[in-house]
Amino acid sequence: MAEGKFVVTPWEVRGEVNYDKLVKEFGTEKISEALLKRIQRHTGELHFMLRRKIFFSHRDLNWILDQYEKDNKFFLYTGRGPSGNTTLGHMVPWIFTKWLQEKFDVELYFQITDDEKFLLKPELSLKQTQNFANENILDIIAVGFDPKKTHIFTDTQYAKTLYSTAIKVAKHVTFSTAKAVFGFKNESNIGISFFPAIQAVPCFLPSILKEKNIPCLIPAAIDQDPYWRISRDVAPKLGFYKPAQIHSKFIPGLGPGAKMSASDPKAAIFTTDSPEVVRKKIMNAFTGQQPTAELQRKHGGNPEICSVCQYYYFLFEENDKKVEKIFEEERSGKILAGEHKEDLADKAVKFIEEHQKKRERAKDQIDKFMLKD
Amino acid sequence: MAEGKFVVTPWEVRGEVNYDKLVKEFGTEKISEALLKRIQRHTGELHFMLRRKIFFSHRDLNWILDQYEKDNKFFLYTGRGPSGNTTLGHMVPWIFTKWLQEKFDVELYFQITDDEKFLLKPELSLKQTQNFANENILDIIAVGFDPKKTHIFTDTQYAKTLYSTAIKVAKHVTFSTAKAVFGFKNESNIGISFFPAIQAVPCFLPSILKEKNIPCLIPAAIDQDPYWRISRDVAPKLGFYKPAQIHSKFIPGLGPGAKMSASDPKAAIFTTDSPEVVRKKIMNAFTGQQPTAELQRKHGGNPEICSVCQYYYFLFEENDKKVEKIFEEERSGKILAGEHKEDLADKAVKFIEEHQKKRERAKDQIDKFMLKD
Repeated sequence: MAEGKFVVTPWEVRGEVNYDKLVKEFGTEKISEALLKRIQRHTGELHFMLRRKIFFSHRDLNWILDQYEKDNKFFLYTGRGPSGNTTLGHMVPWIFTKWLQEKFDVELYFQITDDEKFLLKPELSLKQTQNFANENILDIIAVGFDPKKTHIFTDTQYAKTLYSTAIKVAKHVTFSTAKAVFGFKNESNIGISFFPAIQAVPCFLPSILKEKNIPCLIPAAIDQDPYWRISRDVAPKLGFYKPAQIHSKFIPGLGPGAKMSASDPKAAIFTTDSPEVVRKKIMNAFTGQQPTAELQRKHGGNPEICSVCQYYYFLFEENDKKVEKIFEEERSGKILAGEHKEDLADKAVKFIEEHQKKRERAKDQIDKFMLKD
Repeated sequence: MAEGKFVVTPWEVRGEVNYDKLVKEFGTEKISEALLKRIQRHTGELHFMLRRKIFFSHRDLNWILDQYEKDNKFFLYTGRGPSGNTTLGHMVPWIFTKWLQEKFDVELYFQITDDEKFLLKPELSLKQTQNFANENILDIIAVGFDPKKTHIFTDTQYAKTLYSTAIKVAKHVTFSTAKAVFGFKNESNIGISFFPAIQAVPCFLPSILKEKNIPCLIPAAIDQDPYWRISRDVAPKLGFYKPAQIHSKFIPGLGPGAKMSASDPKAAIFTTDSPEVVRKKIMNAFTGQQPTAELQRKHGGNPEICSVCQYYYFLFEENDKKVEKIFEEERSGKILAGEHKEDLADKAVKFIEEHQKKRERAKDQIDKFMLKD
């Protein structure tokens, strides 16, 4: 990966990210081979997202396993900012989180930050982020989390419970600190500068609800790390464990174009797209290749920027050897990414058809999952 | 009143306050004789706190009466910061608010800011401010508000409802504005800088709950005015009326010493003091006089700093002529304030005994008054 200037905050990822540099700057640790082996002792196998280092960095994961081995089980906490409909890209870390839940048999708290997205985006009303939240929740449930061990909540619907702990966090966080950590400005609104306190609460929520200190493990993209730095600072002051983390890289554009962004409908596959639309999007997908097939065969392509290769890598091909073969063929120009599109489209359509069935069934399961005041 | 340097913010009143200057600085209006007459046309009589200009300033009170005369009734909104037990001083504006409710037959929303006091006071836990809130609520109910038209809530217990509107307010308030209006610093915590948004919500709450725009009148001490400046700025952006206000002067020390402060138990009469303690506190009250009775009779005293005179003025003597007589005798040295102590103690003990009976009965009425999520 080329080095260059890059910016990583919870709200912005810009430039080509150098993950080694990021780990150093953020002060996290890369997941070592020894740690992978330690995980594997508990899980039997390693999820492809661990093998491929999609989840590549952590804080205190060894400590989490120490506690786990002493029968002090952790819980998982992750979240979703409902600024739009769910894309396949959003689902990548959820699928990994489900695997963690299954393999370690642990509870999961899933926060939907409808307040954050409303406060951040001038163009979004609260009604809109709440509607996106409701849509996103169907996708989360459809991933297949255990309804007995999974607790989903939106910040505005769970505000009574969240607010009392949020102000306890907030009392320990100055505006200066929030400015330094998140890049707030004096022009930031007083809602978004309070929000880190709301975001911190789920780290401690199960400990409060169950009246005992429970270790917390957060699977999330590494850009969310600043939030947990605040949580980790405040945790001992409130008598809780510091939340541990397992960080993913940013899921790149799993769609035509460089980024899978919910804000450009053509550049992403949404979980609500019809199978026909999914197929069309894949067939039109950018492959990042040479201008003509002839040049492509001659010079080879770059799987790193090829959305077809990336779809296989992140979502549709769990077999490492097969992925490596597709990447290698692409690099050499032997088989063009375009020639895989039909196969990929079949896989994507199958995935989306199954997901949409589960999504439909999720509508009757919402109550089983939701935490409300 | 002597002029001098003074500071007035929602959290600090320091120095000798020049109210004319304050009205000019804050940009409010003094209540004119014409406005008093207009009020009297509706109320039949004028409360002594209006006659004595204890409530002396306003914003948009004429507009409130315009609306009222067009059958567009306002609601009242006031509040209490539960940083301690209730003193007689706290009850002065509540007694006036009850009079407004009765005379205009209007609803009252009463906010208890347990969050604010927790966020502001390093030494107070949330549990403590919540406990003070519960105690204060008994005193509020004991004032005699109409249970059918009075809605009391604490911020932490009503956070689910408050938070969604608070973030709508917050989105329109930058940290710069909050800094300028409230004197926040970069070292202020991110909870207290968000709090003005929570404080603004009750201005709009009945309009939201009843799905129609309802005028709001806030009776409160003038130091709370900055909060409503933010509410007034934001109101039209959210489609609501700007809240109107009627401002009181600061209730001076209704106890021995210069200030009735809940933080110095000896310097205040608490609603929970036994009749014996009340009598003792009055008998020991500071009268702000000359060192000896002889000098006092010769030079006269100063009723403005005499807590005995002030108790009569603010609470225990509704007859203006009698108050004027007591003040005059004090000034001339004809009858010393100390000579009124026995009479004042009788009145105070009677008041506290009656209040405590009502306070006891209030314990069974809480559910009728409380708004909860």
